[in-house]
Amino acid sequence: MPPTAYACDLASIRAAAERIKDIVHRTPVVTSGTFDRLAGRRVYFKCENLQKVGAFKYRGATNAILKLTDAQAARGVVTHSSGNHAQALALAARVRGIPAYIVMPRTAPSVKKAAVEGYGGKITFCEPTLAAREEAAARLVKETGATLIPPFDHPDVIAGQGTAALELLEDVPDLDAVVVQVGGGGQIAGWCIAARGVKSSIRVFGSEPAGADDAARSKAKGEWLPQTSPSTIADGLLTSTGELTWPVIRDQVERIITVTDDEIRSTMRFVWERMKLVVEPSGVVGAAAVLTEEFKRMEGITKVGIVFSGGNVSLDKHYW
Amino acid sequence: MPPTAYACDLASIRAAAERIKDIVHRTPVVTSGTFDRLAGRRVYFKCENLQKVGAFKYRGATNAILKLTDAQAARGVVTHSSGNHAQALALAARVRGIPAYIVMPRTAPSVKKAAVEGYGGKITFCEPTLAAREEAAARLVKETGATLIPPFDHPDVIAGQGTAALELLEDVPDLDAVVVQVGGGGQIAGWCIAARGVKSSIRVFGSEPAGADDAARSKAKGEWLPQTSPSTIADGLLTSTGELTWPVIRDQVERIITVTDDEIRSTMRFVWERMKLVVEPSGVVGAAAVLTEEFKRMEGITKVGIVFSGGNVSLDKHYW
Repeated sequence: MPPTAYACDLASIRAAAERIKDIVHRTPVVTSGTFDRLAGRRVYFKCENLQKVGAFKYRGATNAILKLTDAQAARGVVTHSSGNHAQALALAARVRGIPAYIVMPRTAPSVKKAAVEGYGGKITFCEPTLAAREEAAARLVKETGATLIPPFDHPDVIAGQGTAALELLEDVPDLDAVVVQVGGGGQIAGWCIAARGVKSSIRVFGSEPAGADDAARSKAKGEWLPQTSPSTIADGLLTSTGELTWPVIRDQVERIITVTDDEIRSTMRFVWERMKLVVEPSGVVGAAAVLTEEFKRMEGITKVGIVFSGGNVSLDKHYW
Repeated sequence: MPPTAYACDLASIRAAAERIKDIVHRTPVVTSGTFDRLAGRRVYFKCENLQKVGAFKYRGATNAILKLTDAQAARGVVTHSSGNHAQALALAARVRGIPAYIVMPRTAPSVKKAAVEGYGGKITFCEPTLAAREEAAARLVKETGATLIPPFDHPDVIAGQGTAALELLEDVPDLDAVVVQVGGGGQIAGWCIAARGVKSSIRVFGSEPAGADDAARSKAKGEWLPQTSPSTIADGLLTSTGELTWPVIRDQVERIITVTDDEIRSTMRFVWERMKLVVEPSGVVGAAAVLTEEFKRMEGITKVGIVFSGGNVSLDKHYW
């Protein structure tokens, strides 16, 4: 299947980068000598936890909103999410001066509600089921004429997420590989297309919690499998991959490495304690994968890129 | 008094920057729209918490060690400190391949001992009094011929700390002011000389915990006063200013702003929660000062620079 058959291509990611560059942060890339020694190679961390709203999601949301026509934009945007995408969409909408309608389960933590409201999002509560969320979102689209912007399975969202990989490769052109965590797959799909578009030899690995390993199982079986009953502290990675993201993962990702919650927790503690960065459990899953024996045994990889994808945690929760 | 009468000048800071540039991190400068709204102006944060060993101290220690002759270096370096300077000196010595003798009180927390040992420092324990520490350090100098590198009151240390201000002003040339926390004064002295050397119109403010306000009292009285019985959670700022640092503070710092421990704590929480950066209490004192009514009332300051000077905290301690 030629690359153009995917949801986006390098040209659309480059266009996204140009479109969002004055709005999103160009996040720093950091290194840690101690982490390098643990990993057995040189590791470069793209700090999307330092992105606005504390997560890479702001790139995709901004790109999708800026691509709307003025007429579409005026009617606003809708999503059903209680995570980082909801906050990202709310802020991106506020920056364009349009309404963001966010469908959230009644049971969502109050800190998440407050964050969305803080960015000016209009919350509609629903029952805590996927059917209820989809139904509420569809009703809002019908009532307001707003555009539905899903959290990952959308060409403009995927293209926006890929812009971080372009920046990383500008800063560190001689990377041999990148390792990217997989939830719905928007981030890894964007990174694949961007990184392999810029540098065809680069190897792309996925990383997943062992308790939410649908992409790993799908790769192993060679067919798309949904996530069922996920269980992990990496609460941003619970979802299944999507119709648009799965084909990229299937064709372009070399392997998916799974890590335990204990590995996630100890990597997270290292990152806070030694690297002085607040990264959420989901955000360190790639770093945890690089520290596994499975990855350390891989040959031909001297320099590897990782993304700290988000830093939205409650400081009242104790992880250790 | 002409600037050349101080412990260092712009030329020595530029030379330090050249000397240490391949060893220290060029740390990122970050911004936060939410912080800007709280502060009422645009604020730029120089992230020295992301420096090696987690603190700006690595700059001064590296500069001082690289300035030693080979013969001096071979005999090693000594300091008496249990804080970030001890770790910084241990690592800088290891990078040059020379011994670092660190005098520490027997009562120092085990995490600090482990950190110094982790960087290869050789610890000598002593009784927990300043006299015992000085005596132990003097004995080590006599026995080993090593060079004493104090934590702040040393020209090469001050010059090294000033290199961060040069970097900040390269990244953000149009700053109107900087606000720098004051402990021994090595950092603010280096910043003063560097920033005002590069841009004579820049205004330099100090910030101190109300419970360790010797510099503020000294400025008010117009004469050097020592710190007595300090009490604050900002445990990196307990010390008095020094013979070399006080004259710079006296002449070049416009005003010292004091903040309460509650202000430090709430600023620290904001920085962790919203900016996703682990900064220690001492490291946010400048940021806390910028949020005071006293500073907000100042006219003529549109853009202000701040330094997150360190991030070495125990994650087992709960600040909120």
